[in-house]
Amino acid sequence: MTKYVYDFSEGHKDLADLLGGKGANLAEMTSLGLPVPPGFTITTEACQTFLTHGAEPRDLAREVDEHLASLEALVGRTLGQRDDPLLVAVRSGAKHSMPGMMETVLNIGLNDQSVRGLAAQAGDERFAFDSYRRLIQMFGKTVLDIDGELFEQALDAAKHAKGTTDDLALDAADLRRVVGVFKEIVVKYAGREFPQNPREQLRMAIRAVFESWNADRAILYRRQERIPNDLGTAVTICAMVFGNRGMDSGTGVAFTRDPASGAQGSYGDYLQNAQGEDVVAGIRNTVPLAELGALDKASYDQLLGIMATLELHYRDLCDIEFTIERGRLWMLQTRVGKRTAAAAFRIATQFVDEGLITMDEALTRVTGGQLTQLMFPQFGAGAARRLIAVGVNASPGAVTGRVVFDSYTAIKWSRSGEQVILVRRETNPDDLDGIIAAQGILTSRGGKTSHAAVVARGMGKTAVCGVDAIDVDTKGRRFRAPGGIVVEEGDVISLDGTSGEVFLGAVAVVDAPVVSYFDGLLSTDEIAADDLISSVHRIMGHADAVRRMDVRANVDTPADARRSRIMGAQGIGLCRTEHMFLGDRRIHVERLILADTDEEREEALATLLPLQQQDFVEILEEMDGLPTTIRLLDPPLHEFLPDLTELSVRVAVAEARGEAQEGDLRLLQAVKGFHEQNPMLGLRGVRLGLVIPGLFAMQSRAILEAAATRVRAGGDPQVEIMIPLVGAVQELETVKQDIINVAREVRTRTGVHLDFLVGTMIELPRAALTADAIAQAAEFFSFGTNDLTQTTWGFSRDDVEAVFFAAYLEKGIFGVSPFESIDVEGVGELVRIAVEKGRSMRPGLKLGICGEHGGDPDSVRFFDRMGLDYVSCSSLRVPVARLEAGRAVVLTEDF
Amino acid sequence: MTKYVYDFSEGHKDLADLLGGKGANLAEMTSLGLPVPPGFTITTEACQTFLTHGAEPRDLAREVDEHLASLEALVGRTLGQRDDPLLVAVRSGAKHSMPGMMETVLNIGLNDQSVRGLAAQAGDERFAFDSYRRLIQMFGKTVLDIDGELFEQALDAAKHAKGTTDDLALDAADLRRVVGVFKEIVVKYAGREFPQNPREQLRMAIRAVFESWNADRAILYRRQERIPNDLGTAVTICAMVFGNRGMDSGTGVAFTRDPASGAQGSYGDYLQNAQGEDVVAGIRNTVPLAELGALDKASYDQLLGIMATLELHYRDLCDIEFTIERGRLWMLQTRVGKRTAAAAFRIATQFVDEGLITMDEALTRVTGGQLTQLMFPQFGAGAARRLIAVGVNASPGAVTGRVVFDSYTAIKWSRSGEQVILVRRETNPDDLDGIIAAQGILTSRGGKTSHAAVVARGMGKTAVCGVDAIDVDTKGRRFRAPGGIVVEEGDVISLDGTSGEVFLGAVAVVDAPVVSYFDGLLSTDEIAADDLISSVHRIMGHADAVRRMDVRANVDTPADARRSRIMGAQGIGLCRTEHMFLGDRRIHVERLILADTDEEREEALATLLPLQQQDFVEILEEMDGLPTTIRLLDPPLHEFLPDLTELSVRVAVAEARGEAQEGDLRLLQAVKGFHEQNPMLGLRGVRLGLVIPGLFAMQSRAILEAAATRVRAGGDPQVEIMIPLVGAVQELETVKQDIINVAREVRTRTGVHLDFLVGTMIELPRAALTADAIAQAAEFFSFGTNDLTQTTWGFSRDDVEAVFFAAYLEKGIFGVSPFESIDVEGVGELVRIAVEKGRSMRPGLKLGICGEHGGDPDSVRFFDRMGLDYVSCSSLRVPVARLEAGRAVVLTEDF
Repeated sequence: MTKYVYDFSEGHKDLADLLGGKGANLAEMTSLGLPVPPGFTITTEACQTFLTHGAEPRDLAREVDEHLASLEALVGRTLGQRDDPLLVAVRSGAKHSMPGMMETVLNIGLNDQSVRGLAAQAGDERFAFDSYRRLIQMFGKTVLDIDGELFEQALDAAKHAKGTTDDLALDAADLRRVVGVFKEIVVKYAGREFPQNPREQLRMAIRAVFESWNADRAILYRRQERIPNDLGTAVTICAMVFGNRGMDSGTGVAFTRDPASGAQGSYGDYLQNAQGEDVVAGIRNTVPLAELGALDKASYDQLLGIMATLELHYRDLCDIEFTIERGRLWMLQTRVGKRTAAAAFRIATQFVDEGLITMDEALTRVTGGQLTQLMFPQFGAGAARRLIAVGVNASPGAVTGRVVFDSYTAIKWSRSGEQVILVRRETNPDDLDGIIAAQGILTSRGGKTSHAAVVARGMGKTAVCGVDAIDVDTKGRRFRAPGGIVVEEGDVISLDGTSGEVFLGAVAVVDAPVVSYFDGLLSTDEIAADDLISSVHRIMGHADAVRRMDVRANVDTPADARRSRIMGAQGIGLCRTEHMFLGDRRIHVERLILADTDEEREEALATLLPLQQQDFVEILEEMDGLPTTIRLLDPPLHEFLPDLTELSVRVAVAEARGEAQEGDLRLLQAVKGFHEQNPMLGLRGVRLGLVIPGLFAMQSRAILEAAATRVRAGGDPQVEIMIPLVGAVQELETVKQDIINVAREVRTRTGVHLDFLVGTMIELPRAALTADAIAQAAEFFSFGTNDLTQTTWGFSRDDVEAVFFAAYLEKGIFGVSPFESIDVEGVGELVRIAVEKGRSMRPGLKLGICGEHGGDPDSVRFFDRMGLDYVSCSSLRVPVARLEAGRAVVLTEDF
Repeated sequence: MTKYVYDFSEGHKDLADLLGGKGANLAEMTSLGLPVPPGFTITTEACQTFLTHGAEPRDLAREVDEHLASLEALVGRTLGQRDDPLLVAVRSGAKHSMPGMMETVLNIGLNDQSVRGLAAQAGDERFAFDSYRRLIQMFGKTVLDIDGELFEQALDAAKHAKGTTDDLALDAADLRRVVGVFKEIVVKYAGREFPQNPREQLRMAIRAVFESWNADRAILYRRQERIPNDLGTAVTICAMVFGNRGMDSGTGVAFTRDPASGAQGSYGDYLQNAQGEDVVAGIRNTVPLAELGALDKASYDQLLGIMATLELHYRDLCDIEFTIERGRLWMLQTRVGKRTAAAAFRIATQFVDEGLITMDEALTRVTGGQLTQLMFPQFGAGAARRLIAVGVNASPGAVTGRVVFDSYTAIKWSRSGEQVILVRRETNPDDLDGIIAAQGILTSRGGKTSHAAVVARGMGKTAVCGVDAIDVDTKGRRFRAPGGIVVEEGDVISLDGTSGEVFLGAVAVVDAPVVSYFDGLLSTDEIAADDLISSVHRIMGHADAVRRMDVRANVDTPADARRSRIMGAQGIGLCRTEHMFLGDRRIHVERLILADTDEEREEALATLLPLQQQDFVEILEEMDGLPTTIRLLDPPLHEFLPDLTELSVRVAVAEARGEAQEGDLRLLQAVKGFHEQNPMLGLRGVRLGLVIPGLFAMQSRAILEAAATRVRAGGDPQVEIMIPLVGAVQELETVKQDIINVAREVRTRTGVHLDFLVGTMIELPRAALTADAIAQAAEFFSFGTNDLTQTTWGFSRDDVEAVFFAAYLEKGIFGVSPFESIDVEGVGELVRIAVEKGRSMRPGLKLGICGEHGGDPDSVRFFDRMGLDYVSCSSLRVPVARLEAGRAVVLTEDF
């Protein structure tokens, strides 16, 4: 028979699936002998049954009764007992904490009779009625679904009548009246009396917790966070202890150590004469935890002892909630604590130094996301700054610029060299050009999934969103901030996208010290002197020692190659050649494209050959001894030609004026010829190589002659030639044969025998699906997950990110943009298929990934699980990829 | 020990894998007791070993020697014996007949000595030297790789010197001289003497056959036809019999019955005093087979008897090659014969009527491709016509129009209502607009894979290509045809794309009689009176009786719905709603798109609702009682707006003239806002439904209210609402919830309870890969294989078909465009995955396909194998799909 209810003394911390995080940790503390009020937990399985069948499991009521009876026996009182009531708290507690679910109803067991018993027992009528009004308020809001504002307003009215804003100024009589008003609210808005039967209160609260699993906001949150819908929530029922029984009572929250400094026991907040929700609501000002030492030294010392115990037991920083009732300390909750990025690194190495965890475990305590945060540009530590508002930290970084209110001005000013910050109430697709032109985005509405936030993150722009303290007046070209501050168009502000802070005036932006460290600019002494840097240094060293995957960089220039090598790249995973065709060389490409005859085409190719060759010589020199994957030309050719619409307009206007030039007309004809409705799905990649005679042969020749030059100079070039956009093995075979022919010629000409690989990008679904066939011709695969994401989902990043990603994130269709973090179910499935099929045909097939996901923390772990040999990412992300490749080895979760 | 050589008496017809088609059928005829010259076959396994190791298998020479010795013993002569030589023919023969491989070397065993022995034995020196020159010519060309033209020229020179063009006019002395010249050619171009050792001749010929497997043209052909590269070819070695031993000798080819009339034994060609290659080369005129009866009645009667035997044995029409040597008949080859589309149907039912095959077998003897041919428009049977040239039948159909030579004229004339035929030497992407404007395409160069052919087939335009008899003078705006005919621009010509014929002047085009039959326009008597129609009728009846899959139609209008129902459609698989938004209604859509406020948007939707509803009422009336799948709006919205470039030019020119209109400027702004770089990958399908409030709800309401109207009128509407472009189940869930809400409202309003399904297109790789999740919300899947092909391959049909498909087909990267016939390995794999995952989640999931592949013969069989419930295609293809769905059941090959 399924057991639906567990006493706190029966569970332990690893039962979060069954008891929820809260219930499991309460059980753990109970078995550690810590002072936890007695109680029990209803399992998630009971909730699942309720949700499936619309009714509680048959045995649940009996089990709850039994456990309640034990509880009553233990404390010597019964629930709602008239003269001396047992009161309980009912809390939801799923495996994952989840906003939108019913959270807590305190003081269950109070009614019109027992409130008087409580008053008599406590000798404190104010306390009893305060507790009762809290019950009706929480019960009304969360169980009876009454708008919470109604209760707040009634409470405010009572304070107003009393001429105060402090709820402590309300006396027993005031609170008795408030209780009366609250009960009227219940009747009016719930259509029923507030239930006087304590058992009914409990039963309704439990059911409300179950039902809150399917509250709209909870569903949305689960959809966004990819939490399965069928887990259900547990319910903990716990004897009440009271922090609101006078000034010798109180409630607090604390971390077991200061996440910034690592000092134990000094970090937390305490509020006298209050219940838990008051701390969170910020009704009155809390005092620092250390002051509890002065208020109640015994409890304080006991608390420090418990915190030490918890840390030792959980072997991690914990956060806790506690209540002191008349000088007696009770632990109400604990869990592994959240921390800042810097604290995560510092604490991890502190724990190692204290002998609590191993370096492997330290590696599990930090994330690539945290390292990324440490690497964003920052405002200089000493720089003067004037904070004017704080909003949602929507897209990280630090920028300073002049305020503009529309795209037109943003573009105009940025063209004249100004740094600008676009300020809008909220953005929509029409603002796209302005977002592109601006350094930073500031909005007064919307959160992390708003249009501005999504687009800014996609473009790597700094953004602070949802700063509701500012009032944006687009027409007046100004915004108002608290304190009467008015910021006019053209005024300078600064945004910290990592903290969400908005500053007036310029603040100097500096490279993060961690970046200087990765750039090799810090001496050993300097590293040792900074505890953050030295923590990072130690953890990175361990990550490098344990990781299985190599990390390479995506770079196109010799300078970037050098930097990536310093950052720890073990090769180049993607050297794009299209960037080498821009600038002065664009004209040769244009000639190549517009060539009418074979001779003209060959001439254009002949001009490009030595230029390309020199590019490759320099890059191969920088990467000497390391594998260097060079991708042949990929983008559609018209990218090298003028824009069709712009040119059409220019020519038409010139014609209207009778000033049309013959050259322009011919150019327009050619541009029209190369115009494509969907260039991303057009003539590019290997298709170019097969359709434009000599192009890929020229590039291959440039690469192989550059390698031969390096060999003759005593170097060790490790060339891997990569063919983009292959969908069928026949494409690769055809191009590969050309490359082999070129290699033979180069060998004859130079006398140098080169070892090199020919491989392909896997960036089309068909390439992944037919990877076994393709592996017959490919010596390596490199996943191009950007294009693979576009074709798998059938949307182009450029076109849709700005238009509907915000809506999709809002509706929970995405948890995160599939361009930020790999879509495991869809794109990831193709990766899995390609790895399996590819290696089935060629067991030693070298596998890598060179899409942007190569630097995304979650994605790196996924690629490790898939068995890839390396990830490749932009230089600046190389450290993150190294860290995550190490974490992948020590973490045990699967995908 | 592997056996590498099989005597003709050892094999049989089902050993084509091992003995090649030719060897297997020779063995079969031998065991039937038919007069086959003695011989043996070297297996494909020997060839495979040779190709893998670069050398013949160790035992091969010994086995060949043994079989040759038996052969010599049998005929009582040895290979190349001086006084009376045994001569042999060496032929290649793979499983699949394959152009580009070495085909035949006759007369092996002749040399400077044995030619005299042959002359003496035959008493015919001319015959002997004619045979010897043939050996040197064929051996030189195919074994020694000398340009065949050199021999032809030398032979022509000899004839010229004699003042004749007839090779029979050359006497023994002439041919002796020709032999001398041929031997000089060998020395000069092969760098060696023609081998005099008969064993060496044989060994070299066998090796040449092996090596010809990897000739460029053979490789290309295999790539195009998807024939595996490792099969290898067999080699048959057969004692020579001579059709060139005088006028009582000869050679011929025949069908066992006339494929057009079905009459036995009357269909073939015979050539006196000739060897086989003369018939194919068309050197002299052949006579109809029936005349053999007059020339050599005994042989003729024997041949008719053999043909009857073969037909009875193979239970199919066979084609044969035979030789008569001095009045004695020898069978040299047989195989199941090719036939025209009409003949295939007629013969299939004839065979049934003759009791040779069952109706199931009859169904395997015809193809959907043949039925398609019978359904193309044709020139009226009695219409006068003047044939001026014949080319490659590149894209079927029959058209009449005025000749134009460039795109500009094509567009101009077609806009003024002319039907035009674009005539070019060859086409390239610049001609695309002209091809679109023209009814037909005629080129003087290129074959079935040329640009013109590929593009025309893709667009369903009639094309005749590679008419090398015409000389196109684009600048002079005329072309010349044989017989001094000059066709000027504006002259009328007619093209038969099914036969490749070009006619001068107009020829009346009529619907094919088969189409009239399917349109239900023929009476029972009319059907019975036409043997083709009655064959089709019987076979279609059987296909319908046996097929497992339903066939539906893709139709958007009531009229088309009615026609498709007559054609046999069992429902609508795809009713697109976008076509309902064109014409007069475009303005409402524009208003919807440009709406600034919710009110404007709702107003536009409110205007569209009743219009849509009426559309659906009419279609549901036509399809009463049959399932009707209606797809919600799919295309990107800007398709309803003016083209960005055109509008930009118009506005810019107006501005330059100071005539800009405010309205145009605002429209341009909006068009810019909706412009997408890659609209196919943009805001369309379900994304529209999620981003444009109210759009899908309006459409669903129109559908469901229409259904309610039908129910109240006593009808039986079977509505299936289909959501396009779903990539994630969350999209479908969100839209489905809206539809359910709308349904509830409609039910409340109308009082009609409707049963309807909500399902999705599977047209993105991600939808296929996550089909298990999607099936949780979808009640049916319909594969949209057009879009699925585009995203799986990462190319857009519009952009690439014209640009690189021709190159791809030429290089063998495609065997056939994946838009014509489903790409089994790539797109098909996604279909397989989606079917498997979808049904694993929802066992009864209804599965169909509504892409254009639904009417492609090969694809239909694939979909049957995948277990789909129905295919849906355009009305005109419904009969083809019915036929192929029937064939799928009786055919045994798998994919």
